Amino acid sequence: MRTHTCNELHHSNIGETVTLIGWVNSNRDHGGVAFIDLRDREGMTQVVFRPEENAKAAELAKSLRSEDMIQVSGKVEERPEIDGNSTVNPDMATGSIEISASELVIVNKSEVLPFQLDKELSNEDLRMKYRYLDLRRARMTRNLRLRHRITQSTRNFLDADGYCEIETPILSKSTPEGARDFLVPSRMHPNHFYALPQAPQQYKQLLMCGGIEKYFQIARCFRDEDLRADRQPEFTQIDIESSFVTPDDMHGLIEGLLGKVFKDALGVEIPASFDRMTYVDAMNTYGSDKPDRRFEYHLTELSEELKDCEFRVFSGAIANGGVVKAINAKGFAGATQGQIEKLTQTAIEAGSKGLAYIQARDVDRSTWRSPFVKRMTDEEVEALREKLNIEPGDLILFGAGEWESVCEVLGRIRLECANLQNLLEGNEELNFLWVTEFPLLGFDEEENKWNAVHHPFTRPIPEDVDQLIAATKAELDDESQRYAGLRAQAYDVVLNGYELGGGSIRIHEAELQSAMFTALGVTEEEKESMFGHILEAFKFGAPPHGGIALGLDRLAMLICGESSIREVIAFPKNNRGMDIMSASPAAVDFKQLRELRIQSTVKDKPKA
Amino acid sequence: MRTHTCNELHHSNIGETVTLIGWVNSNRDHGGVAFIDLRDREGMTQVVFRPEENAKAAELAKSLRSEDMIQVSGKVEERPEIDGNSTVNPDMATGSIEISASELVIVNKSEVLPFQLDKELSNEDLRMKYRYLDLRRARMTRNLRLRHRITQSTRNFLDADGYCEIETPILSKSTPEGARDFLVPSRMHPNHFYALPQAPQQYKQLLMCGGIEKYFQIARCFRDEDLRADRQPEFTQIDIESSFVTPDDMHGLIEGLLGKVFKDALGVEIPASFDRMTYVDAMNTYGSDKPDRRFEYHLTELSEELKDCEFRVFSGAIANGGVVKAINAKGFAGATQGQIEKLTQTAIEAGSKGLAYIQARDVDRSTWRSPFVKRMTDEEVEALREKLNIEPGDLILFGAGEWESVCEVLGRIRLECANLQNLLEGNEELNFLWVTEFPLLGFDEEENKWNAVHHPFTRPIPEDVDQLIAATKAELDDESQRYAGLRAQAYDVVLNGYELGGGSIRIHEAELQSAMFTALGVTEEEKESMFGHILEAFKFGAPPHGGIALGLDRLAMLICGESSIREVIAFPKNNRGMDIMSASPAAVDFKQLRELRIQSTVKDKPKA
Repeated sequence: MRTHTCNELHHSNIGETVTLIGWVNSNRDHGGVAFIDLRDREGMTQVVFRPEENAKAAELAKSLRSEDMIQVSGKVEERPEIDGNSTVNPDMATGSIEISASELVIVNKSEVLPFQLDKELSNEDLRMKYRYLDLRRARMTRNLRLRHRITQSTRNFLDADGYCEIETPILSKSTPEGARDFLVPSRMHPNHFYALPQAPQQYKQLLMCGGIEKYFQIARCFRDEDLRADRQPEFTQIDIESSFVTPDDMHGLIEGLLGKVFKDALGVEIPASFDRMTYVDAMNTYGSDKPDRRFEYHLTELSEELKDCEFRVFSGAIANGGVVKAINAKGFAGATQGQIEKLTQTAIEAGSKGLAYIQARDVDRSTWRSPFVKRMTDEEVEALREKLNIEPGDLILFGAGEWESVCEVLGRIRLECANLQNLLEGNEELNFLWVTEFPLLGFDEEENKWNAVHHPFTRPIPEDVDQLIAATKAELDDESQRYAGLRAQAYDVVLNGYELGGGSIRIHEAELQSAMFTALGVTEEEKESMFGHILEAFKFGAPPHGGIALGLDRLAMLICGESSIREVIAFPKNNRGMDIMSASPAAVDFKQLRELRIQSTVKDKPKA
Repeated sequence: MRTHTCNELHHSNIGETVTLIGWVNSNRDHGGVAFIDLRDREGMTQVVFRPEENAKAAELAKSLRSEDMIQVSGKVEERPEIDGNSTVNPDMATGSIEISASELVIVNKSEVLPFQLDKELSNEDLRMKYRYLDLRRARMTRNLRLRHRITQSTRNFLDADGYCEIETPILSKSTPEGARDFLVPSRMHPNHFYALPQAPQQYKQLLMCGGIEKYFQIARCFRDEDLRADRQPEFTQIDIESSFVTPDDMHGLIEGLLGKVFKDALGVEIPASFDRMTYVDAMNTYGSDKPDRRFEYHLTELSEELKDCEFRVFSGAIANGGVVKAINAKGFAGATQGQIEKLTQTAIEAGSKGLAYIQARDVDRSTWRSPFVKRMTDEEVEALREKLNIEPGDLILFGAGEWESVCEVLGRIRLECANLQNLLEGNEELNFLWVTEFPLLGFDEEENKWNAVHHPFTRPIPEDVDQLIAATKAELDDESQRYAGLRAQAYDVVLNGYELGGGSIRIHEAELQSAMFTALGVTEEEKESMFGHILEAFKFGAPPHGGIALGLDRLAMLICGESSIREVIAFPKNNRGMDIMSASPAAVDFKQLRELRIQSTVKDKPKA
C-alpha cells in the first residue's frame, strides 16, 4: 500500500514516483493549491496537489480534513523557492522535498475529532474515552515504542546470561498474605475460585525447586487495592529468580541489566555499579528507605546535644528513649509563611504533632526566628551550628520522638523542601542506590502480631537464621520484642527516590520456612492448606535461591520522562478501576452468573 | 556458590580446583568409595569421594541420596584406567574427567521422592502434584528452554521488522460473541464484572486506529470452555496486527518468522514460502481445512460416474444435490475386520451413517470384497479403477451425501487410514500450507442465524464487500441463502495437519462493520452497548489493517516433538481446570466474597 514511510524520503529520492499512506495532519490552501502534511508513525511528508497534475485529485484534496486516511502517489520533488525564499523546512526529516501528487485515494474519512491532537489535553476522561486517538500523538507513540525497547532489551540481556523466560499461571491460587486478590469464579467447581496473581512469587520459587536455575518473566500482576495516586489494578514486573546466588550476584545482574536498558532506550551510560546503603543508614541519613540522593539535606542526630534542653519537646522525647534529628535546608530561611505551613502540614500527615524549625537569618542567634530557640542555651545553639553547619539564610527543621517516626517525618520534610526550593529542576542526574538489610519482620501494634516486611519467603541474614527459629519458641513478656532487630537478606534498587524494584534471598528449607510462617501467626492447619505445596517442595533438595522484581511501568515512566504510569500503558484504568473507552467493568448477562453459580448481593441491580 | 556448571569441565581443566553445586543424580559405592553423578540444569559431572582426600567427607558422601542438594570442591582429574580398562564415558560431555572431592557441604537433604525422575511416569495426577520434581527431568527442562528460545526468536524477528510489543489489558470487557468468558467481579463496582480476554482482538485493532501500525504481543488468552482433549483454560498466542497490509504481506511475515523460529530452535531450514490453497480446494482434496499433505490419499469426486449407480446410497445422494467421493488407501486392502470397524466408527462419529468400502484384493473385480460392488456395472467399476488408480491390494473408502459433510467424513477417514497404516512413522517432513478464502459466515440451522466463521471483524474479499452490505437488506425467503458463498479475506497457516494459527484482513469502516454485526443478528442497541467504542473508532480515519495469531503452546509442542501442550507449559491445569499442585481453584474466605458483594448459589457450601 506504500513504497515508503512518511519519514523516509530525502533529497536523494528526487525524481522517484512513490506511494505513501497515512493521516492528514494538516491541510493548507495556498492560492487554490492544497498543501497536505501526511503523517504516519514514523513522521511527516508534505504533499502538494497541483491542478495541472490531476485536476480531480486537486479538487478532492481541498476537501480533506485532519485525520482523514489517504493514499497518495506522485513524484518526489525539490521544495521550490518562492519569491526568492527557500521553502525547505530544516526541522523536518523530509523537509527538503515534497510530493507532487498525481493520485489520491481517500481510504477512510474522519469525522471531526473530539479534541485536537497537537494540543495537550487535561481532561483525562476524554483522553481515555478516545484513547485510540490519544495514542496518535507523537509523545504517546514514542512512549509505547520506548517501553517496547526496554522490554526487548531486558529480554536480550537476560537471555544472553542464560535466563529462561517461563510463563506462570494467571489463573492462580488465592493466598491471604499480602494485598487483596482479584477472584475468578470457577464454573466447573462451584463456590471455588481462582485468584489473579499478585506476583509469581511461589511459582518462580517452585521453578527453582524444579531445577530451572535461571528464570525470568515480564509478568502481569494484579492487586485489588484502592487506587490512590498512581496505581493500576494490573501492572507489569520484570520478575527474576536464580538458584545458587548471593545478594552480590543479584546486584551485579541488575546493574548490568539497567545499564543495557538505559543504553538501548536513551543512549545514556549509567554507573557500572551502584552504591549500597543499609536500611538503617538510609533512614538515619535520608529518612527514607528509597532516598533521593541528588541533594544533601542529611538528617543529623542531635539527641546528645539536646538531651537537657529546656524545650521539653526535645528533652522529653529523648528521655522517653526517642531521638531528636534535624535537617538544614540551605538558603531556605526566607521560606514564606505559606511554605512553613505547607512543611508543617507535611510533618503532620507523616505522623508528627507539629514541626519545630529555626529560620537562621543571620549569624547571630538573636536574628534567628523560631518559636523555641529562646529556650536553648548558648552551648546548645553552638552545638547545633556546628553539627548542622548553620550559615546565614539556612532553615533548620526538627523532628523529635521515636526513631523510625522521626526519620520518616524528616524524610518527607526533606523532599518537600527540595520541592519548594525547586532544587531538582533541570537535574538530569540518574542516582542509583541499593538499600540492603531491611528488617525481616515488623510489629503491628494494633493487631499485636508480626508481619513480613518484604514477604514470608525472605531469608534472614545468615547470622539471624538461628535466632528466628529460637525466637518462635522463646517465652517472652513483651511480644513486640520477639523478632525485633532480625534483618532480612533483602535489597531494593532505588533511582532518584523511586523504588525501581526489590528482592531477596529466599528461604529454601522446610523447617526455616515453617518457622517463618509461625512467626507470622500462620497456624499449622493453614500452613498445610495454604502453603503445603511449597513446604513440601522444600523437602526434596530445594536449591538455595534468590531473586528480584522490577516495576516495569515505573521504570518505563522514568525513562520516558513522564510523571504518571498511565502515560506508558496503552489502555490504563482510571482511579476507579474503569476503562472508560470500553466501559469496563460492565454488567453481564444473568445467564453468565447462573452458569458460575454466583449472584450479586446488591439489591438495586443495574440492568444487564 | 560454584566455579563451573556440571556440564562444563573438560580434559583441559585437569588439575584445577573447582566448586560445583547440584543434585545427587546417583550414588554408587565401589569398594567403599562413593561415586556421585552430580547434576545441574546443564548436565552431569562425576564426583569421587576418596577417604584419603577427606575421610569425613567420604563417610558423609556414602549417606547421600538421590536429589540431595550438595556443594562439592575438589580437583579435576583424568578418569583412571581400572584393570587396563578406560573409565572414560564418551556419551557424557564431562565423561573424560572426574572431581576428586576434598570438601562436601550438604546444602539441603531430600526425602525419598514420590517417583523416580529417570523413568517416564504415566500417572498424570502424580506428575502434576509434584510438578516441581517432574520439571527436573531433562526432557521437561529442555522443553521449557526450547519454548523460551521460540519466544525469544519471535520477538527478535518482529522487533527487527519494526513491530512493537504492547501489553493489552487482562482485566477486560465481556463480549457475548465467541466462547464463554472468565469473569472477575469488581469490588469497586458491585454487580459489574471484568472479563479475561479470549484474545486481544479489539485492543489490537484499536492500536491500529491509534497509529501504532505494527503491533505484536505474546499474549495470554482465556476461554472458559469444557476442556476436551488437549485444551487449557489459559493459553498463549503470538498476536500480530499491522496497518497497510495485504494477505501476501502477512504470509511473507509469518513465513519469515517461522523460518527464524525453526532455525533458532531446531537448527532446521523450512521452505522460504509456503504453498497456498483455498478452503474449497483443501476440503475437496483433503477433506479438511487443515490438511496433512505428507501423504496423498486425495479425495476424488465420482458423482458423474456414479449418478446412475444401482447402489442407492450413491445415486440417491447425487439425485438430492449431493456428491459421492472416495479415497484410495494404497495397499490397505488387507485391513482387518477390526480396522474396518474402526474406520466405520470414525465415519459415524464424523456424522456419516456408515462407511462404504471396497477391498480390491486383486485386479479382477470378482476378487473385490465389498458390500455393494456387485450392484455396480462394469463401466462404473472401470471408471472407479481409472479415476482412483485402483491396483491390487488397495482399499477404497466412499462418502456420499452433502458436499461439506462428505468432505469432512472422508478427511477423517483419510487421517485414520494413515494412522492405522503407520504411514507417518519416522516422517520428519515439515509440511507448511496456507489455507485461504474461508467462508465469511456460516449458517446455524438450529438457531436459524448466521455466525462468523473467523470472527466479526474479518473483512470479506474485495469482490464480496458490496454483496455483504446488499445482503443485509435483501428480501429473501430462504434465510440460509442470505450470506452463502461470501468469502473472507482470512488465512490459516497449517503444519502437518495442525492449525498453527489464523488471521485475516479486518474491516476498518464503521458502515461495513455495522453491516457485519447486522448479519450476525446484533441489534442496534447491542451494537452500541457492546461494540460502540470500536464502531466509533472506525469513524476517525481508521487505517486498513490485518493480522494473525499463532498458537504458541501448539507451536512449542510441535517443535519439542511432544503430543500434548501440557508438556510445554510449566504449570498446566488438568482437564477439570485444576492445578493439583497448589489445589486451585479453591474455596475462599467468606469475607472475600462479601467484599465483592457476591455469593455462591450452591447450597451445600464446602468449608472455606
